[in-house]
Amino acid sequence: MTDKAARRAKFEGVYEVIRDELIGHFAGEGMPEEAVEWYRNNLNYNVPGGKLNRGMSVVDTVEILKGRALDEDEYFKAAVLGWCIELLQAYFLVADDIMDSSITRRAQPCWYRLPSVGTVAINDSFMLEAAIYRLLKTHFRGQAYYADLLDLFHETTYQTEMGQLVDLITAPEDKVDLSKFSLARHHTIVIYKTAYYSFYLPVACAMLFSNIPSSDEHIYAHAKSILLPLGEYFQIQDDFLDYSATPEVLGKIGTDIVDNKCSWVVNTALLLTSEGGGKEYSAEEKREMRKVLDENYGRKEAGTEAKVKEVYERLGIRQTYEAYEEKVVHAIKAKIAEIVEIEGGLKREVFESFLGKIYRRSK
Amino acid sequence: MTDKAARRAKFEGVYEVIRDELIGHFAGEGMPEEAVEWYRNNLNYNVPGGKLNRGMSVVDTVEILKGRALDEDEYFKAAVLGWCIELLQAYFLVADDIMDSSITRRAQPCWYRLPSVGTVAINDSFMLEAAIYRLLKTHFRGQAYYADLLDLFHETTYQTEMGQLVDLITAPEDKVDLSKFSLARHHTIVIYKTAYYSFYLPVACAMLFSNIPSSDEHIYAHAKSILLPLGEYFQIQDDFLDYSATPEVLGKIGTDIVDNKCSWVVNTALLLTSEGGGKEYSAEEKREMRKVLDENYGRKEAGTEAKVKEVYERLGIRQTYEAYEEKVVHAIKAKIAEIVEIEGGLKREVFESFLGKIYRRSK
Repeated sequence: MTDKAARRAKFEGVYEVIRDELIGHFAGEGMPEEAVEWYRNNLNYNVPGGKLNRGMSVVDTVEILKGRALDEDEYFKAAVLGWCIELLQAYFLVADDIMDSSITRRAQPCWYRLPSVGTVAINDSFMLEAAIYRLLKTHFRGQAYYADLLDLFHETTYQTEMGQLVDLITAPEDKVDLSKFSLARHHTIVIYKTAYYSFYLPVACAMLFSNIPSSDEHIYAHAKSILLPLGEYFQIQDDFLDYSATPEVLGKIGTDIVDNKCSWVVNTALLLTSEGGGKEYSAEEKREMRKVLDENYGRKEAGTEAKVKEVYERLGIRQTYEAYEEKVVHAIKAKIAEIVEIEGGLKREVFESFLGKIYRRSK
Repeated sequence: MTDKAARRAKFEGVYEVIRDELIGHFAGEGMPEEAVEWYRNNLNYNVPGGKLNRGMSVVDTVEILKGRALDEDEYFKAAVLGWCIELLQAYFLVADDIMDSSITRRAQPCWYRLPSVGTVAINDSFMLEAAIYRLLKTHFRGQAYYADLLDLFHETTYQTEMGQLVDLITAPEDKVDLSKFSLARHHTIVIYKTAYYSFYLPVACAMLFSNIPSSDEHIYAHAKSILLPLGEYFQIQDDFLDYSATPEVLGKIGTDIVDNKCSWVVNTALLLTSEGGGKEYSAEEKREMRKVLDENYGRKEAGTEAKVKEVYERLGIRQTYEAYEEKVVHAIKAKIAEIVEIEGGLKREVFESFLGKIYRRSK
């Protein structure tokens, strides 16, 4: 087993424990056997099968902050926080799949698509969220930072839902209107829908767990000022790879254009074909390319996707992306360098580790 | 204006303030104007239009516990807690309507049925829940009982979701199977899906607000031991009125039979037609009546509902209900009488007031 696989297996071992703990509590409330079975299936189908990057990064970050390996109890507790983030993710994904009419998730049918499930999936998503607070109460009720932890999860949940709302009304799957799109709108969606819960939340959890007091607001603010741009960079990379990477490398076929996604790529194309952007093209050429985008973006008809990609190529989105990447990585590195490493405070390595995993990734 | 209408108007005044507070915060996060508009519509459509019994009972209970009228600040804060319960209710109802394929709610189309809304309603329900924690943080973060308040809302939310799961898998609208029904199952559903959030939660909120410490667990347990049976009684009454009350009195037409509801009435009928129940009928007669129930309950065809009602009449469900009502009210009164009224503790009047509003109600 590789080191990475061993780390994953250890983290997954904690899932078994908390799953049984949740089921035990649920059954102990006198719930009928078929409901217990249902809840077990809900947890097993929706929680553990992802990449687990968010959850495992809590453990990694705690290790870096403490500067040593964790003892068994510390590992378990940090992993519980990690699994709470995975539960939050599962809560969002089960619901998002219904709202997006998605077909598959993690190489299996979406939970709500199982004929035996249907819209009960909505209540199931609620129960995944509720499980977070059950676990936090069981394992963290006595800690001085307990209320901070709850506030953090509440706030992050709310932010993600704000982002999801903006995304849903900006880019409904069935109604294409590129006039609603913009890089500013993309920024709002990505920061709120993804960056807070995927990047800030794991680190903030690890910081609270490592007893960095929430009253040291500037430390949390500094972490946020690095992690939100990092999360945005990650998502923009994701958007870019959806268009640029070959399926062999990416491991899946990009569908953002067909699905009317408010992607960084289309927003960049919209900027470059707007009045102020793309200086090397005449107003006439820009109007023409914009027309191609309006008429072909988010359509299911054969050939439309290729026409959009032609415009992307003509506009040199690849070069624009590379310039963006170098610029944002430079800015993030500058903010990491500003960290003053003091005992019991932040460590640059936390962020360098994240950045290292992301910089110039190809899938 | 009647006293009751004035009390309602005062409570509604607080809604305006917290709605604007929520919108102000949301807009302050830099959300686009159309998202702000959407959120405002979500709140206004789904939160304030109900009977408001749950929310207003927080204020009433605090007044009884303090034994005096509240000053302006106390009233406002108690009402915020009340509105948090109304938000919790709105969160459940918006989602339940989707899961039950309901058409109308509070004499208007269900939120998800508006063509402009659809499944975005799922995220909207999430945001109604998130609003609770935003409000609690804003108005209660500094209180010693803040973490208790969060725990209380979390626990109650989870319990309600457990009840909703059991209800959904016991009585799906489209698949009738009375062998899953029983009075025990009805008890589980009602306690978890309704009694905790509708009866225990408002009083427990008022108790925390009145500084009854959560460490006095027996006081909270005593309140629960009265309020859960009271909530069950209320729901059983609701089930009974759905069948027995005339539409003129009830203000709506009962649809529990057609909708395959796991109602107290059908469960009582199932008990009375079972081997051990309904001593005055022969085994043959009971089998025959049970057959009528199996073949006609939860069907949309003309005449099926009337056949079920015939069995109910033959079984004398009305008398069974009256006997249940006298028995449960007697038991509840006994538990109320056990309350030792000490300074800063519980008061019998809290529960007498609830009971008085419920006993022998006709709608």
